[in-house]
Amino acid sequence: MDALAIIEAELTGAMLRAEANGAPPKLAGAMRHALFPRGARVRPRLAIAVAAACGATEFAPAIAAGAALELLHCASLVHDDLPCFDDASLRRGKPSVHAAFGEPIAVLAGDALIVLAFQTLAHGCMTHQSRLAALTLITAQAVGMPSGIVAGQAWESEPDIDIARYQRAKTGALFAGAAMAGAAAAGHPADPWRGLGEALGDAYQVADDLCDAAGSLAESGKLPGRDAAKARPSMVRERGIEGALDYLDQLADAAAASIPACPGRAGLQALMIQEAKRLVPKSLARVAA
Amino acid sequence: MDALAIIEAELTGAMLRAEANGAPPKLAGAMRHALFPRGARVRPRLAIAVAAACGATEFAPAIAAGAALELLHCASLVHDDLPCFDDASLRRGKPSVHAAFGEPIAVLAGDALIVLAFQTLAHGCMTHQSRLAALTLITAQAVGMPSGIVAGQAWESEPDIDIARYQRAKTGALFAGAAMAGAAAAGHPADPWRGLGEALGDAYQVADDLCDAAGSLAESGKLPGRDAAKARPSMVRERGIEGALDYLDQLADAAAASIPACPGRAGLQALMIQEAKRLVPKSLARVAA
Repeated sequence: MDALAIIEAELTGAMLRAEANGAPPKLAGAMRHALFPRGARVRPRLAIAVAAACGATEFAPAIAAGAALELLHCASLVHDDLPCFDDASLRRGKPSVHAAFGEPIAVLAGDALIVLAFQTLAHGCMTHQSRLAALTLITAQAVGMPSGIVAGQAWESEPDIDIARYQRAKTGALFAGAAMAGAAAAGHPADPWRGLGEALGDAYQVADDLCDAAGSLAESGKLPGRDAAKARPSMVRERGIEGALDYLDQLADAAAASIPACPGRAGLQALMIQEAKRLVPKSLARVAA
Repeated sequence: MDALAIIEAELTGAMLRAEANGAPPKLAGAMRHALFPRGARVRPRLAIAVAAACGATEFAPAIAAGAALELLHCASLVHDDLPCFDDASLRRGKPSVHAAFGEPIAVLAGDALIVLAFQTLAHGCMTHQSRLAALTLITAQAVGMPSGIVAGQAWESEPDIDIARYQRAKTGALFAGAAMAGAAAAGHPADPWRGLGEALGDAYQVADDLCDAAGSLAESGKLPGRDAAKARPSMVRERGIEGALDYLDQLADAAAASIPACPGRAGLQALMIQEAKRLVPKSLARVAA
């Protein structure tokens, strides 16, 4: 199986546990709606790629950590789409969870996905219990307070936002968590991997801003133009499209350069550059020099 | 220190970690608002009492598990009070989180408290890592799908509710988790303790129904009469006040009888009976036979 198939199998297994024994059907349906069909699964792929680059021979903890981060990512999308935040009716080209299932079930689906993430992590570490505490702390740091994605979203309710801090928490934190979890799952120190994750997170945020400014519904599965409509902080708004494209190139180089010494460093560097190119909306793709 | 002081210290420590390093101030304030001043902390006291009855000598895992369950309980209250659920403006005699901080921050406060719960558990098990997986799974089972408090709340969105299943998930699950976590934290098998927790959870739910029907704002910190106003399932609605009082007595006896063999069984039985008496609204208190 390739990494994507392994990730889908892990998420399917987690969802089957959540649905067991007569679970309330609407909530189960909303969780499935949020999780499937798959997005790009970039965070779990990163966790597994880092574990592999670190020379892992047993992948269960990395797969579980990656799935946990994907569950948390999906949870954050469900809550971000709620009427009190983005009030988005579409997500990945289909109705958002609250549009399809109503607001109460959407709040609960986010909550249940957060819980399922930590449960999935514990399941995946049953044969490697010494890894669980570190992976739980890395995961919680990526998601919670004071600097995870929940904190990032909360900055939108503050009168003064530092855009770099905001985006680092809102997007970078989960990527940093994925890179660090991949290392920790392989028994390597996690902290040296934070820089890679943060640079990738910044790159994804800039790419997302570019998609919002110049992408299409067909390409991204989201209605473009929401950042401008909501006057949200955006790198395109700050630097223009060309400036944002330049910044994306710099971030991809920084990500590749930041990879710590490990057995699979060269292969991982090539993968990072390739991923960054894939992110740019087709209408803006630059011809390689 | 007594158990309550220990629990407050654990929750304060968790909150200080959440606020570190320039956290977004409104979200931090909302989390504090949800956590302090203390409620009765019945779930963590139960976890610690069970660990003590099991003969625990090291209490860090039980304290952390108890605090985690309290964080999750507070998270559920914040989300249950949201306009799309109970639309409650008061909680424990002060404004609910969304009334005080707005709906976006209330959604995020619930999310952040859920994450903080699992983080607190991992921190508390750093010197007892072999306990963490079991405690995480017990905690997740009490809160998530298919039968934890989130599932319980989701049954309110279904056309057909089995009231026993609904209340067991919505209230019993967290008490079952507390009793089971106390045992697991002490290295005892957890499953035999589920019955105690479920009976106590049922007792608390009936007591809550009685407070809603016959209590006062001063006594419970909540506006009474909401169950009837919302036509919510309630044991008072089903059996009347006398019937609910009889049922509460039966549940307290059942809870005491269900306690598994352990070094501190007699003391724990006395504590359970005493707690059950404390729950009845003063206007309804029966003179002991």
